[in-house]
Amino acid sequence: MNIYKRYERISVILKILSENPNTLFNLNYFMDLFKTAKSTASEDIEILKSTLKKFGFGEIKTVAGAGGGIKYIPINSIDSYHEFMIDICKKLEDPKRIIPGGFLYTADIIYSPSAANKIGEILSHPFQEKEVDAVVTVETKGIPIALMCARSLNVPLVIIRQDNRVTEGSSVSINYVSGSKMQIRAMSLSRRSLERNSKVVLIDDFMKAGGTIKGMMELMNEFDAEVLGAGVMIATKEPEVKVVKNYFSLFTLVEMDEEKNLIEMEISDWLK
Amino acid sequence: MNIYKRYERISVILKILSENPNTLFNLNYFMDLFKTAKSTASEDIEILKSTLKKFGFGEIKTVAGAGGGIKYIPINSIDSYHEFMIDICKKLEDPKRIIPGGFLYTADIIYSPSAANKIGEILSHPFQEKEVDAVVTVETKGIPIALMCARSLNVPLVIIRQDNRVTEGSSVSINYVSGSKMQIRAMSLSRRSLERNSKVVLIDDFMKAGGTIKGMMELMNEFDAEVLGAGVMIATKEPEVKVVKNYFSLFTLVEMDEEKNLIEMEISDWLK
Repeated sequence: MNIYKRYERISVILKILSENPNTLFNLNYFMDLFKTAKSTASEDIEILKSTLKKFGFGEIKTVAGAGGGIKYIPINSIDSYHEFMIDICKKLEDPKRIIPGGFLYTADIIYSPSAANKIGEILSHPFQEKEVDAVVTVETKGIPIALMCARSLNVPLVIIRQDNRVTEGSSVSINYVSGSKMQIRAMSLSRRSLERNSKVVLIDDFMKAGGTIKGMMELMNEFDAEVLGAGVMIATKEPEVKVVKNYFSLFTLVEMDEEKNLIEMEISDWLK
Repeated sequence: MNIYKRYERISVILKILSENPNTLFNLNYFMDLFKTAKSTASEDIEILKSTLKKFGFGEIKTVAGAGGGIKYIPINSIDSYHEFMIDICKKLEDPKRIIPGGFLYTADIIYSPSAANKIGEILSHPFQEKEVDAVVTVETKGIPIALMCARSLNVPLVIIRQDNRVTEGSSVSINYVSGSKMQIRAMSLSRRSLERNSKVVLIDDFMKAGGTIKGMMELMNEFDAEVLGAGVMIATKEPEVKVVKNYFSLFTLVEMDEEKNLIEMEISDWLK
């Protein structure tokens, strides 16, 4: 006889899996936890798989082989984020967000833990089936969504600094041109924060011409890192020609007009 | 007859609750989701409550009254974090973390999503039963743990900037004395990022004399905010007299000696 009831086992498995996305769990782990036979544990997992499918709550993948087990993919379909995307798009179009100087106020969205979590999950989607070693961002505003993206991929976050206040030992610095304004700025990363030859995903909150992402790519070059792709929450429509190519965005800022008190935001095609 | 089996309903309820800590859900929400009667929904919740208790996975609280419902408290007992604290303490004592200039390398821990999540949850513990409006941190290194603390309390994160690159409209700046080095530095916060008269929790990764936390408190004063408390991951033992009083830490850095190649770290008393 089993010590724990099926609903206890299944809900606890789901809790553990969803708190540890993309983490491999051997079946023995759950057999030990609940003192069940292998057949029961396998059955529990199968039942949980179909429950998740019914509710569109991510997916459990089985990894075969001796070192195998199961892992939880928090985002299996972009569709389940559709309502959220429409809601955020509407919020982003509020003209009160226009800040003199051509800036867009987004802190209330990207610093909200639940919104940051969903945005991070969507940004992680193109990389869920890839081998990623780290998610890299540049301080400050992109950190919350980048952390949640890293969480969804079960990899560490790496934060590039934009100043010299790096208190993390020897670092590598590069200069880059902030595209739209042609300003020269610096970014630096401590040597020990990223292993050589890592496969990385770049994340940022906002992109105009792409100068910052290009700078990040150059800095990644210094670490012999392979950039699998770059994801930003919002990219502006203008300039249409960006200085980087390998990027995607969740939203496109089509127009922001201070005079007309108007913001036009679009959900990117791949998310429609 | 119920459309969904008990284990389906219970695991899905747990998934929804644990993804939305401290968020009030009316019973109707689950009745609609599963097309069940009130009695079934209540029974499901009761069963889930006792399951969580058995496994030490947080707690479900019932809020009575017309606007009532249930909410999930992710951390009900500090005990369940004991192993984690010992593990992190051991890791923090690795002498390879010593960085010339008296700095301690912690990025691999505080930028790891799962560790940041647990640290954030522990930092939220003293405030779980209080009414909190926002978690406030100062860029950069404290952001991940502060975000996870905010997530656990279901409140927005507010990030104070340490430069003038604030692109969030009009802001309030203060100067503060970075205690241990007696340097004068500035921090600023955009006006719209925090409502007047908010109740806030201050979070940072590291504290020596407490100058930064004191600066944050002064800045909070400018926003007529009430500081409920300040939590830091690591506080140094020296200087024993800090410039702030109302704070707590998870770890105490007793000694860090570059010559002797030694770090001595202690888990704070309230967590032992």
